[in-house]
Amino acid sequence: MGGDFAPDVVVAGADLALVKYPDIRFLLFGDEEKLKPLMAQYPKVAEASEIIHTDKAVAMSDKPSEAVRRGRQTSMWMSVDAVRKGQAEAVVSAGNTGALMAMAKVQLKTMPGISRPAIAGIWPTNRGESIVLDLGANLEADEKQLVDFAILGESFARVELGLEHPTVGLLNIGEEELKGHDEIREAARILRENVPEMNFVGFVEGNDIGAGKVDVVVTDGFTGNVALKTAEGTARQFADYLRSALSRTFWGRLGAFIAQGAFKALKRKMDPRSANGGVFLGLNGLVVKSHGGTDAMGFASALDVAVDMAGSDFAARAHERLAALAFHEAERPVGEITPQETEEIQVAES
Amino acid sequence: MGGDFAPDVVVAGADLALVKYPDIRFLLFGDEEKLKPLMAQYPKVAEASEIIHTDKAVAMSDKPSEAVRRGRQTSMWMSVDAVRKGQAEAVVSAGNTGALMAMAKVQLKTMPGISRPAIAGIWPTNRGESIVLDLGANLEADEKQLVDFAILGESFARVELGLEHPTVGLLNIGEEELKGHDEIREAARILRENVPEMNFVGFVEGNDIGAGKVDVVVTDGFTGNVALKTAEGTARQFADYLRSALSRTFWGRLGAFIAQGAFKALKRKMDPRSANGGVFLGLNGLVVKSHGGTDAMGFASALDVAVDMAGSDFAARAHERLAALAFHEAERPVGEITPQETEEIQVAES
Repeated sequence: MGGDFAPDVVVAGADLALVKYPDIRFLLFGDEEKLKPLMAQYPKVAEASEIIHTDKAVAMSDKPSEAVRRGRQTSMWMSVDAVRKGQAEAVVSAGNTGALMAMAKVQLKTMPGISRPAIAGIWPTNRGESIVLDLGANLEADEKQLVDFAILGESFARVELGLEHPTVGLLNIGEEELKGHDEIREAARILRENVPEMNFVGFVEGNDIGAGKVDVVVTDGFTGNVALKTAEGTARQFADYLRSALSRTFWGRLGAFIAQGAFKALKRKMDPRSANGGVFLGLNGLVVKSHGGTDAMGFASALDVAVDMAGSDFAARAHERLAALAFHEAERPVGEITPQETEEIQVAES
Repeated sequence: MGGDFAPDVVVAGADLALVKYPDIRFLLFGDEEKLKPLMAQYPKVAEASEIIHTDKAVAMSDKPSEAVRRGRQTSMWMSVDAVRKGQAEAVVSAGNTGALMAMAKVQLKTMPGISRPAIAGIWPTNRGESIVLDLGANLEADEKQLVDFAILGESFARVELGLEHPTVGLLNIGEEELKGHDEIREAARILRENVPEMNFVGFVEGNDIGAGKVDVVVTDGFTGNVALKTAEGTARQFADYLRSALSRTFWGRLGAFIAQGAFKALKRKMDPRSANGGVFLGLNGLVVKSHGGTDAMGFASALDVAVDMAGSDFAARAHERLAALAFHEAERPVGEITPQETEEIQVAES
């Protein structure tokens, strides 16, 4: 078990998840000595869990390639392996994102027709929630990968947002057709011409994400990661301004006291924990990454996403779309991941 | 004169700017028939201005390449021409960004040693203000251009933020040296090895912009534009949440009423008008782009930036840094801009 506050947060999160989904069963990979007292503390989790002991864990600072090469006894490797073997329907981890992605790629491989997985996140918007991907699994994306991400994102939005025909947009720096990188324009053309069933609306801009203009925002991992962190930074900045503006004067403090209910509602709404869970899409198996610094509530929302996805037709729908795409060779070569490829896995801790 | 509310906003902005800088003189390029009644309304502006009549203007929807080819009688072309001829020290426009950049490149050419200009913006942060560039003049930037942008941004920060040794960071998706695109890593190496006088701190991430971790954030125009618009979208989102949370209950409305002074302070702080003015850096002449949908106060802040820059040693400092860079050939070929190049000018309206 990984993450900044594991295993406590993981077990406490599992306890919360059991309230909503009493039928979940857990395989807990980690140090039995540390888990035992927690099982005593959370008897419902103990009852729903099997502990698979290992005292090895991937550290947050481990390089992904190293973790893959030398980490076969770690809790992370073993838990991904359980998904590969069909012993578990999903793995949820708060550990090292890069190592988790590397292990997931090596063990689960990408879905037929998909060359690279993407990390999808749930982004709170003015209209509810949207899906944004890739948030950092890849530094770059060519037109085919952007098309793949659009298909994966659409399928994810159907499950996670419960929409039959989610709208999909490509992140660009202008809405006009002539703007943007070649690969983005080309991806737009392919989606329009080859995936007519998709509700593809064209280009969207940075401000359209928070406005909830589309249900699925597609971009490369570099841009997606910068956008996500810039939004987080701006939200924190706004909250700090608000706090300091209100605390500066007597009337500000009084008003804040009187309106405290409203501020609590605002805090809940902007709370990143409620949208915690980067989902690795495009693999033959389900991997959900919880924020490293999360608490039990945050970990429970990541478990929520895993449960939603595990019971869904996500893969079937994505396969259907991919099969219809003329440019996809029947099966792209996937094969074993090379050490060089794991070196390339540049996942940013979000 | 361009912009959504020209010429009224331009003249009203000039009137505000004269309060702070009574010695500015204006060349007003535009339709005399429209300007005359405004001159009667703003006698101080009338006294400080010379009107150069033209009834042609670049429309917001004009393509940059078309504007350059066919727009030689427009107010925009004529005003940039005045800077080229030394009749004006700076041009400030709220018009079509792409056309303004294309005309500026064609007429003013890039500074010796600089291959492409960048758009720099002033970003409000938790620590004050930072400079972010490029905000959309170029879709991509190679390592040399990123280094150029760092030098231009540093020099701009000295003038605009009044800092002798501003800190400079490259926007990336992780702080570790091994992460990010090759060109970003290479730019970091060049800055470290070849520009040791610069206070270069390495990589920064999206959330570091709003936190004010560095004074100058350097990135390519695509990423910069997405980051800027994502931040704007998030700020608007937060403001909407706050408004709706406070208006939903009686106590929220009462608290908001009592703390209204604090909310006004917050609004001022988050007001994009106070940081209005994208500055085109790297040209032989000063061009300031005001937001198209701005009001008089916004246009006045763009004029502020122009005045600050006009009286500064910005170009001298940038030249000094550029001259010290071993990899810069004495003078890069600049020459006439080709139609194809103007076609490439992909400036997003921000």
